[in-house]
Amino acid sequence: QDGVKYDQYGMEVQSKKIKTEMQDGRLVFESEDSDYKIWLDGRVQADYAGFFGVDDDYDEIGNGASIRRARFAVKAQVTRNWYGEFDIDMADGTAELKDAILRYDGIKNVEIQVGNFKENFSMQRNTSSRYLQFMERPMVTYLAPSRHLGANIKYSIPLIWASAGIFFQEIAGLEEVTNVQDNNKDYGRGTGESYTGKLVLRPLHKYNDMGLHIGGAVSYRTPKSTDAPSDFGGVRYSARNSTSINRKKYVDTDVIKGVDHSLLYTAELAGHYKGLRVETAYIGSTVSLKDDSPMVNKDNKNFGGWYAQAGYLLFGGQQRYDYGGAKYNRVQRGQKWGDLELTARYESIDLNDFDGGVYGGASEAYALGMNFWVNNNVKFMLNYQYNNNDRYANGKGKLLVGHDAAGKPTKDYTKVTESKGKAGIDYSMVSLRCEIVF
Amino acid sequence: QDGVKYDQYGMEVQSKKIKTEMQDGRLVFESEDSDYKIWLDGRVQADYAGFFGVDDDYDEIGNGASIRRARFAVKAQVTRNWYGEFDIDMADGTAELKDAILRYDGIKNVEIQVGNFKENFSMQRNTSSRYLQFMERPMVTYLAPSRHLGANIKYSIPLIWASAGIFFQEIAGLEEVTNVQDNNKDYGRGTGESYTGKLVLRPLHKYNDMGLHIGGAVSYRTPKSTDAPSDFGGVRYSARNSTSINRKKYVDTDVIKGVDHSLLYTAELAGHYKGLRVETAYIGSTVSLKDDSPMVNKDNKNFGGWYAQAGYLLFGGQQRYDYGGAKYNRVQRGQKWGDLELTARYESIDLNDFDGGVYGGASEAYALGMNFWVNNNVKFMLNYQYNNNDRYANGKGKLLVGHDAAGKPTKDYTKVTESKGKAGIDYSMVSLRCEIVF
Amino acid sequence: QDGVKYDQYGMEVQSKKIKTEMQDGRLVFESEDSDYKIWLDGRVQADYAGFFGVDDDYDEIGNGASIRRARFAVKAQVTRNWYGEFDIDMADGTAELKDAILRYDGIKNVEIQVGNFKENFSMQRNTSSRYLQFMERPMVTYLAPSRHLGANIKYSIPLIWASAGIFFQEIAGLEEVTNVQDNNKDYGRGTGESYTGKLVLRPLHKYNDMGLHIGGAVSYRTPKSTDAPSDFGGVRYSARNSTSINRKKYVDTDVIKGVDHSLLYTAELAGHYKGLRVETAYIGSTVSLKDDSPMVNKDNKNFGGWYAQAGYLLFGGQQRYDYGGAKYNRVQRGQKWGDLELTARYESIDLNDFDGGVYGGASEAYALGMNFWVNNNVKFMLNYQYNNNDRYANGKGKLLVGHDAAGKPTKDYTKVTESKGKAGIDYSMVSLRCEIVF
Repeated sequence: QDGVKYDQYGMEVQSKKIKTEMQDGRLVFESEDSDYKIWLDGRVQADYAGFFGVDDDYDEIGNGASIRRARFAVKAQVTRNWYGEFDIDMADGTAELKDAILRYDGIKNVEIQVGNFKENFSMQRNTSSRYLQFMERPMVTYLAPSRHLGANIKYSIPLIWASAGIFFQEIAGLEEVTNVQDNNKDYGRGTGESYTGKLVLRPLHKYNDMGLHIGGAVSYRTPKSTDAPSDFGGVRYSARNSTSINRKKYVDTDVIKGVDHSLLYTAELAGHYKGLRVETAYIGSTVSLKDDSPMVNKDNKNFGGWYAQAGYLLFGGQQRYDYGGAKYNRVQRGQKWGDLELTARYESIDLNDFDGGVYGGASEAYALGMNFWVNNNVKFMLNYQYNNNDRYANGKGKLLVGHDAAGKPTKDYTKVTESKGKAGIDYSMVSLRCEIVF
Repeated sequence: QDGVKYDQYGMEVQSKKIKTEMQDGRLVFESEDSDYKIWLDGRVQADYAGFFGVDDDYDEIGNGASIRRARFAVKAQVTRNWYGEFDIDMADGTAELKDAILRYDGIKNVEIQVGNFKENFSMQRNTSSRYLQFMERPMVTYLAPSRHLGANIKYSIPLIWASAGIFFQEIAGLEEVTNVQDNNKDYGRGTGESYTGKLVLRPLHKYNDMGLHIGGAVSYRTPKSTDAPSDFGGVRYSARNSTSINRKKYVDTDVIKGVDHSLLYTAELAGHYKGLRVETAYIGSTVSLKDDSPMVNKDNKNFGGWYAQAGYLLFGGQQRYDYGGAKYNRVQRGQKWGDLELTARYESIDLNDFDGGVYGGASEAYALGMNFWVNNNVKFMLNYQYNNNDRYANGKGKLLVGHDAAGKPTKDYTKVTESKGKAGIDYSMVSLRCEIVF
Repeated sequence: QDGVKYDQYGMEVQSKKIKTEMQDGRLVFESEDSDYKIWLDGRVQADYAGFFGVDDDYDEIGNGASIRRARFAVKAQVTRNWYGEFDIDMADGTAELKDAILRYDGIKNVEIQVGNFKENFSMQRNTSSRYLQFMERPMVTYLAPSRHLGANIKYSIPLIWASAGIFFQEIAGLEEVTNVQDNNKDYGRGTGESYTGKLVLRPLHKYNDMGLHIGGAVSYRTPKSTDAPSDFGGVRYSARNSTSINRKKYVDTDVIKGVDHSLLYTAELAGHYKGLRVETAYIGSTVSLKDDSPMVNKDNKNFGGWYAQAGYLLFGGQQRYDYGGAKYNRVQRGQKWGDLELTARYESIDLNDFDGGVYGGASEAYALGMNFWVNNNVKFMLNYQYNNNDRYANGKGKLLVGHDAAGKPTKDYTKVTESKGKAGIDYSMVSLRCEIVF
């Protein structure tokens, strides 16, 4: 019975009866009035990727396997208006803190939260790894902020979704916190701040089987103290080729030193109709230097990229949009045995700013995928991807990207003799993910 | 139904029906006879701190934010007499083991436990971080032992509380265990031992709305192998200025080498009356060197400090003392919307032993706080603090603490020209904690 | 009630009523049809070990204590045919990923699983640490593979048990993943592969109070990228003296470089009759070098060892064999207060291959133990062990193993003057484990 008990010290103990249910494959503990609700959220993703077709003269690419994610979370609606979350990842055996949240939702249509969580900037970045259309997000989303420590306010009705927040450093693993603490201890450096705002419209919200998401976001960001003390005050963008197995970061600006701030911006358009889901976005960044920056070229640096992707459920399933999160959700499968989703993507990232004197490289990739949605808990993903890197995408000068006049492979793009579009590292990937959530 | 089932191998499986309840905001699984009871214990604390008023000539102090604690624990009364616990912290993204306990409580009023847990020495140190009056414990509690691996026996009746234990090394994160293993592997060094005893009297235990805690403890400690092999056999005391954001350790004895043992001692007095809770304690340490210590001055080194603090619930709430733990507990809020607690503290630590040739610095701090106890799960803490460090508190010679004869800032206290009480680093802090437990 | 609900977006939510039970000391959440079943699995093991009897001229051995395991796992049968698992260890404060599993068991008598889990090779290695007869497995099991990332298929009926799998690198903690990533990034190296098969016969499966396990396994293994880049392509075997407290690795082949593959093989025989359980196994390894190996002696290297152990429950308890796992399980205690198990073991490992030019050392140990099985959750283990290492067991040249012609202690086995069987490090250990599971 709900009510009040007394403990051994005569102190009153509030108690409520809790019912236990499996809801959509999750274990949920919930009070009759639903004011109190706790659920567990576990996730295991085991990946394999193989690579082929790279020029024999260039650097080898290693096949491999990975526990891409091993997550355990407790999510708790502790009263009608307060919510908390604890979420860790043991991917490949290393512990990282993911969501650590305190949220107040006592104002209608509004959520205020503090802690460590994803900034509301990029739809693709904020989509749960369980509901991605491809195994890895496109390269350009690595310009977009992921989880940071901060505070955010969100307003959401079906038509309009708006979010604004202030954020400090990234909380992830040992390296980040060591840098923050060393920067603070030895140099008295603050953590840096970011201001991120986003607005999304969903004009088709009244329809059940279709939807449209038109969004835009900006983020003003000062350098963070998660960088090593020697790199503090800088900004560096780099990305792997949309895989976590091949660890080479082909495109890499190296550290741009003496940064005053960077301004990120994005525009995104997504929609669904029955089994079809499409999504495209451009993400850009303008990095502004301080007057006393040690960089020779003190112009602003501009980087950016985009992607367009689509998925279609072949056996009658429905795509589902999460209006509260302004992102896509788990599909509704069309068959008792599940459903198959066919996906395609084109993506591009450009970390070259020739005027700004940055030759970070550019890269594009074409991908095809097949997702087997078995049930609420199990999913398999099979991806084929072709990567095309340009001659500047040499991993900060460490990778062979062409041949010089003597026909010898070279890492130096100034010596490459191949014609435009022929230099740079191109290859194919086949990858597989096995996923279970519980 | 309770009873015995048989599994597929014909083996009997004991089973008991378990009821699920929310008790004081916690999810609790409990058998009808209460012999079996498991509960989860999650905690997220997000902190921010800003600093101001430091002399412009001195080292900068960095503002910052932190996930101060992100805890997940499972606590299990597995039979009437046996209890176990698993507790981890992911604070700022780094994994640490907290409580890992096996306990027997089959003897009336007695608890015997082994594993990793807090030594019963300092009331303030043993108070849960959820029930602290200020965001951080006073500096002098960093002389007191926290969690160590060991075994302890406790006797507790309302009037008398007594505890004695033997302890080995500290189990926390990667650094500690690496040192223990290297010391063992390369030098055959044991982990070191500590013997800690405490006695507490609670003369007012018959009153419901008041209480008095009169306690004293001693701890005899040999050097531990958690120190780096090069520092083994030493003792070092250091403390930040009662904040985890400003990482500077102003007071720091550096490693005192060739230590035979240290003797810790404390006296503490605490009490409450309705909404008022007061607490004061002195903690001291005497470090005794070996005859062959490499220290030039082989005298015993004496360090110590004290604090006095009080809190008052403004809106009718009651302070609550935990007789089993001999420490304070969560308050009982006076209003439906919660309660506000006003707090004040003075504290002081002295790591100077001029006779012993140690100039580790001394520091004092004045603090005021306001705690908003929203409900059983949510709490906000706002602290203002003024720190006053002396000229010896230069972080092992790394921090500017005064001006020399030429008017230049200096780290060398022998060159400081300021008069007594004028040198050293003084500044103010404002800090905020947002906390949720579940 | 089981059925379908609708969430705020009009999406259907499948729900099922779950009953909560304590089963054999575990908290289990299970649907009426048992298709959905989740349980928690926590474990704390606190160890102490003391050493004596080592020659005063030799290197000291450090006594010590350890949180040997602090485990937390969630195990989930999410549908009739799919199972998932998340399992971490915080032993001594360092986070490691243990089991991370996705399993399909929709084919009768067959289990297919992917993720991180123990290869089915050695019965002793695969036995849960909760059900070991001694605190630590015998030295030779460190030749056998433990958890690796991979995929496995298993067929099991009472008479026959067969398993085959392909495996990649070991997933454990930070060191392993850093090496894998660096090898991939900087050298394009794959993770390496292993192919492991095992066959077990259980001819007495129709008897309830006795059983026989006759097993054999082979594993073909290429070098893994978990080795540091500078050691890549090598194989190294080393072992402590069947304790985790004394960290010295007396027997150690050092890195054998330029390895093409190693071939592991084992034969094992185990059985039980009422309270008696016996087990013996031989494990061997043949390491084959590449033609361009930098090793001077390019012959195959052969290593191996064996153990024989037995346990007997003194007060009427029964030993229990797990036919699905082909290994031993928790005993059934004979008395209300529990049961005592007396155990004995002889073990031997030989990492010398004189023909192959490897002087890694050989070691043997005699052990006696007493296990107190208190209830389903609590167990105490007391071990006495005598270790006898040979003169080559000098920890890669770092340990004193004899006396030279001048009577001085020496690490160099070529200078040792002791007669056969007299050199090498011999000593005794007494150790204690306190364990609770929940």
